Amino acid sequence: MQDVAIVGVGQSRFSRNCEMTIKELVFEAYKEAMDGLNMTNADIGASILCSSLYDNQRSAESPVAEYLGLNPQPTFLIENACAASSTGLRVAWSLIRSGLYRIVAVIGLEKMSGQTSREAAEMMGRAYDVTWESSFGLTMPGGYAIHARAHMAKYGTTEEQLAKVRVKNSFYSTKNPKATFKKQLGLEDILQSMPVASPLKMLDCCANADGASMMILARGDVARDIAKIPIWIAGLGSASNTGISRRTTFTSFTCAKRAAEEAYKMAGIGPDDINVAEVHDCFTIAEILAYEDLGFAERGEGPTLIEKKETYLEGRIPVNLDGGLLCKGHPIGATGGSQIRTIVQQLRGEAGEIQVKDAEIGLTHNIGGIGHYANVTVLRR
Amino acid sequence: MQDVAIVGVGQSRFSRNCEMTIKELVFEAYKEAMDGLNMTNADIGASILCSSLYDNQRSAESPVAEYLGLNPQPTFLIENACAASSTGLRVAWSLIRSGLYRIVAVIGLEKMSGQTSREAAEMMGRAYDVTWESSFGLTMPGGYAIHARAHMAKYGTTEEQLAKVRVKNSFYSTKNPKATFKKQLGLEDILQSMPVASPLKMLDCCANADGASMMILARGDVARDIAKIPIWIAGLGSASNTGISRRTTFTSFTCAKRAAEEAYKMAGIGPDDINVAEVHDCFTIAEILAYEDLGFAERGEGPTLIEKKETYLEGRIPVNLDGGLLCKGHPIGATGGSQIRTIVQQLRGEAGEIQVKDAEIGLTHNIGGIGHYANVTVLRR
Repeated sequence: MQDVAIVGVGQSRFSRNCEMTIKELVFEAYKEAMDGLNMTNADIGASILCSSLYDNQRSAESPVAEYLGLNPQPTFLIENACAASSTGLRVAWSLIRSGLYRIVAVIGLEKMSGQTSREAAEMMGRAYDVTWESSFGLTMPGGYAIHARAHMAKYGTTEEQLAKVRVKNSFYSTKNPKATFKKQLGLEDILQSMPVASPLKMLDCCANADGASMMILARGDVARDIAKIPIWIAGLGSASNTGISRRTTFTSFTCAKRAAEEAYKMAGIGPDDINVAEVHDCFTIAEILAYEDLGFAERGEGPTLIEKKETYLEGRIPVNLDGGLLCKGHPIGATGGSQIRTIVQQLRGEAGEIQVKDAEIGLTHNIGGIGHYANVTVLRR
Repeated sequence: MQDVAIVGVGQSRFSRNCEMTIKELVFEAYKEAMDGLNMTNADIGASILCSSLYDNQRSAESPVAEYLGLNPQPTFLIENACAASSTGLRVAWSLIRSGLYRIVAVIGLEKMSGQTSREAAEMMGRAYDVTWESSFGLTMPGGYAIHARAHMAKYGTTEEQLAKVRVKNSFYSTKNPKATFKKQLGLEDILQSMPVASPLKMLDCCANADGASMMILARGDVARDIAKIPIWIAGLGSASNTGISRRTTFTSFTCAKRAAEEAYKMAGIGPDDINVAEVHDCFTIAEILAYEDLGFAERGEGPTLIEKKETYLEGRIPVNLDGGLLCKGHPIGATGGSQIRTIVQQLRGEAGEIQVKDAEIGLTHNIGGIGHYANVTVLRR
């Protein structure tokens, strides 16, 4: 069977209270993804919209495909909480490998500013089981706070260590013109920010945002004609977990660990082979968990990795050099595609100030819910 | 590459104001689909939930997968308006063909009774473009009424001919214990029912319903070990159309015609080879359009097909022998899977009273929105 490559990536600016429609947001991502490619929209055999649809438009794949001129090609929507667009990548890979299409577009989208923060928090809460979990008041920050407390209790992790993740990501966000927040923060800024769900404070949390992303995948034999530097999909891993009330461990996302093992196996590599990574830092604790679940650090050693600045550009394994979800903002369906975009730019050698020297192999780690879904993707130049 | 077969099918009873939770509904479909198979839930490599999520639960793939014991295997949701579960079938086929999984479960689900009819109508309306279409009051019956009027104007189709579709489907619904409505209706019942969107009356319309469906797909080499009679996926076709306000024809769904051509080509057959079909009769006019778009009748000759009873069990091409959406009820995400279930039962020779003699090749036609999305699937014994 044919290999599959990513030939184009793009994203809109991520922001709060954006005045663009969902179609305009997607068009920004599309323009960037198509830039310089030797193909037109008529070559796109199918499109997949990845979204949780916080916007008023239902079944948005139709108006979006129409706006991009992608009729009469088929289109459908994938929802997988915050992991939607990496699931879209996986499905697009399959649609090409199975022989149905040569080129598939994966569009990530969320416009969350139609809701107040309180409404959005309530909607997000209903991604927990509505019978046994969200009905008792569990929110997203609450779910991650449980994991932070568990990590502190078991490994002595401190609030300062968590805050250091945000210090790093805010430092790199100043180099990302498409990020929602581009201000460098100090340790005290984070530690003194408003408590949200103890031990997590406001600046331990990412923000809801409006934004879109786009990935264009192509069959190996055409990819080289379409793009100067196709980036190859080398490993794909995916797994799920039960709802939070039936779990026995809160210091790891078991589905992320499983997805990572699957992706490494398919790519024939291990964690030490990764040159650059984007991980799902919806909260500071989530980046620490990712270090450990991906094998970048031993269990309980995640905090040491950030303490020693090993995940900075100059470190052993640079992570979230685009500012991460914490600073870019987190437009749910668009996030996975934005992570892939950053890694593709790195592997193409087009990452500018944040370029990891000679990056050959990159990884993305995209979580849905509170460790309900996990996708790990390994890309190669 | 390996062929892919359907090894198991099931559905819950479709009904209005069902008191079961979404998990319980799905479990009913799951029980029937797994019945008699030589496999367990641990053999299911991935699951896809197909739904528009009218229920309160967001990201329902997680609680559903947990309830069926399908963790830690990956799971995600596909939305494609009323075509969701046939899109799920297509994606599952790709996930198997691409080499990722041997067995994939496709779950269709909708629980619509949490909303009042008015709320549901408004939500459904927002599947039209919210900027240019639904905001001006266009509803689903309204969209189909436009098509009925156009067909009448161009071909002289009558309200009596439309009503005869419901007469047929209500006759067969008396043989389907899982249908919402099981009462045989006469022509006058339909013609005298309350006007909804002229020329469509209450009994020209299907009803919102609660229900679930399930399909289990397996790779060719394992399918024969799992099921006594695997049913093979021979042809898949899929296409989209723009929003309704940018179309130039209202006497056909161009995407359905395109999807049919694609499916026939892949299966190496034509419309005359189909022994039995399930088509998307969300309104009586929709079944007439389907006859013509699928090539069962020439353009404008759809009404003649029902006049001559050619789509009855004894006719040239039996259609909707399970009562169709009109009588079964239409739980959006579950409908495509329910259509496939009926055809699988026919090709297995297990359709009882409605069995088409020696049925070898069957077809399903599943529309999303008002001809926004179309999937045509050809199955073979």
